[in-house]
Amino acid sequence: MSQHLHLEAEILDLRTTHPFVIARGGQSDDRTIWVRLRDRDGLEGWGEAAASRYYGETPESVLSALNVYVSGMPTDPFDLEDTERRWVTTLGRNAAARAALSAALHDLVGKRLGVPLYRLWGLDPAKAPRSTFTIGLDTDERIRAKVHEAVEYPILKVKLGTDRDRRILETIREATDKELRVDANGGWTVKRAIRMLPLLEEFNVTVLEQPLPPSDLEGLAAVTRHARMPVIADESCLTVEDIPPLVGKVDGINIKLAKCGSLREALRMVAVARAHGMLVMVGCMIESSLGITAAAHLTPLVDLVDLDGAALLSNDPFVGATIAGGHVALPEGPGLGVRAR
Amino acid sequence: MSQHLHLEAEILDLRTTHPFVIARGGQSDDRTIWVRLRDRDGLEGWGEAAASRYYGETPESVLSALNVYVSGMPTDPFDLEDTERRWVTTLGRNAAARAALSAALHDLVGKRLGVPLYRLWGLDPAKAPRSTFTIGLDTDERIRAKVHEAVEYPILKVKLGTDRDRRILETIREATDKELRVDANGGWTVKRAIRMLPLLEEFNVTVLEQPLPPSDLEGLAAVTRHARMPVIADESCLTVEDIPPLVGKVDGINIKLAKCGSLREALRMVAVARAHGMLVMVGCMIESSLGITAAAHLTPLVDLVDLDGAALLSNDPFVGATIAGGHVALPEGPGLGVRAR
Repeated sequence: MSQHLHLEAEILDLRTTHPFVIARGGQSDDRTIWVRLRDRDGLEGWGEAAASRYYGETPESVLSALNVYVSGMPTDPFDLEDTERRWVTTLGRNAAARAALSAALHDLVGKRLGVPLYRLWGLDPAKAPRSTFTIGLDTDERIRAKVHEAVEYPILKVKLGTDRDRRILETIREATDKELRVDANGGWTVKRAIRMLPLLEEFNVTVLEQPLPPSDLEGLAAVTRHARMPVIADESCLTVEDIPPLVGKVDGINIKLAKCGSLREALRMVAVARAHGMLVMVGCMIESSLGITAAAHLTPLVDLVDLDGAALLSNDPFVGATIAGGHVALPEGPGLGVRAR
Repeated sequence: MSQHLHLEAEILDLRTTHPFVIARGGQSDDRTIWVRLRDRDGLEGWGEAAASRYYGETPESVLSALNVYVSGMPTDPFDLEDTERRWVTTLGRNAAARAALSAALHDLVGKRLGVPLYRLWGLDPAKAPRSTFTIGLDTDERIRAKVHEAVEYPILKVKLGTDRDRRILETIREATDKELRVDANGGWTVKRAIRMLPLLEEFNVTVLEQPLPPSDLEGLAAVTRHARMPVIADESCLTVEDIPPLVGKVDGINIKLAKCGSLREALRMVAVARAHGMLVMVGCMIESSLGITAAAHLTPLVDLVDLDGAALLSNDPFVGATIAGGHVALPEGPGLGVRAR
């Protein structure tokens, strides 16, 4: 058993094929952090931290947080429960940094044992639902071009939440009859959301994600009562403790590692949401195939998948899980199964 | 990868040191089923089914259920999620039989990988709370003798629920000043339970388990409101789906593999109870060290442990987890880590 884990972190400059814009502006820094934990035998566990400006994180704040968490590094990577608990107690928030460390430890454990993470978790990757591909806010012309480029993906996720919502839906529906899901990223008021519902129904939108600002749980409950399609909480649901207050108010939750800060917390969130009969979605940030693959190992447990973060990139530095044709394909290598391109 | 798992099942005749009696009579058959799954390489995974008459199970019904479940055996023991789901869909109830199969699969997976189950789960066995040792219903004289015999155990669990409750508490308190927890096994009415509370406080009882019949959730809520010590649901809480209705009505739940039918379900129950701020206890039936060890791997995740099933036996056929001095000691072998004596 290795006594020490050596931590290295490196900023990755990611580029999206198109500028990625959502209701509250550009979503991410497009720089993420590649975390590597190396044990004495030279085995490496990898993880990715996708800093979220929305949660006050930057690549620099992730590096600072990692500098704190390094003091709580386990001597044994299998000591997952206590290590993750120690980290969140030592320094709260900073979920992206902790998610990267969590992924790296799980990667290392899988590599030590020689099995993919999904097998350690007892899961069958064939059970993964198909992933959506996201069409960000843009001009009509560019949205048409994006829909065309997304020809291989059977389900599109449409970003709304501005005064162009009707026009965007019309533009996309003119271009395709694919299944559409909508994500307003908290861009609507209750009144606006309820007024949007007939339009969403007219355009056969099947899922509505985060119509209202995160803290408006009563508003979410009102939208859910009025909506025929399931309403999913994203920004309103970061960790397990956010789930009980959402019970009966939304139909499901969107789990992201960059929000919950841990692969184990993600598994707990699945269990808690299921216990309350809620739908479970797994989503992502703009991140490379490294971060996407960590989340992809959860997909056999969920109902809805939105793991297009790496598919939106033009310079993905890693090879891992893919969503070609919307089909989530998990790599077969041990641990996360990710390698550098 | 082995393509077939061969199932063998054998009845174990267990003997308790003393006749074991609780509020609703003799608790168990004292016969359990030893389940063995053997793969093509000759590796064996073991589990134990403790049939519960209270849930309509007998050793014979367990054998019949195993005969049904054998048709849903996985070709790959790592396929835990889907296999367990298939079993419960194929034939519900019969939790004891499914728990034995679940334990056997987990044992086999751990042995294939060469690591103890607690390590697969990322847990530190040093985090396990101390286990109680149970004093069943008996005459004053024999209760005194039992308390004397239990000298090594720092916490006693006292079975109540008859008209001798006060006498039993007095007898035990005369004999020891140890921490006492009480389990009424559903033997009280609301009125009786609330009337018992001052007596329990007088005798410094620290935990009250299942004061009322399982379905009386409103009654449990009333007792919990009146009680100074935490109230734990046992017979009221079999699986994850029983937890949401108990939120706000009791302070915690007692997880038993023979009730929930799966090690994975037990982990989910921990997550769900924790999400609602509930205490988590892990308990057992009268069963050998094989069944006890499967449950013992959960102990680093819980607050309260009652795993004395094998310690109450005079002819335990296995060597595994122990509770000497109340200290839960997990074996270091791969999988469950249990061997035949």
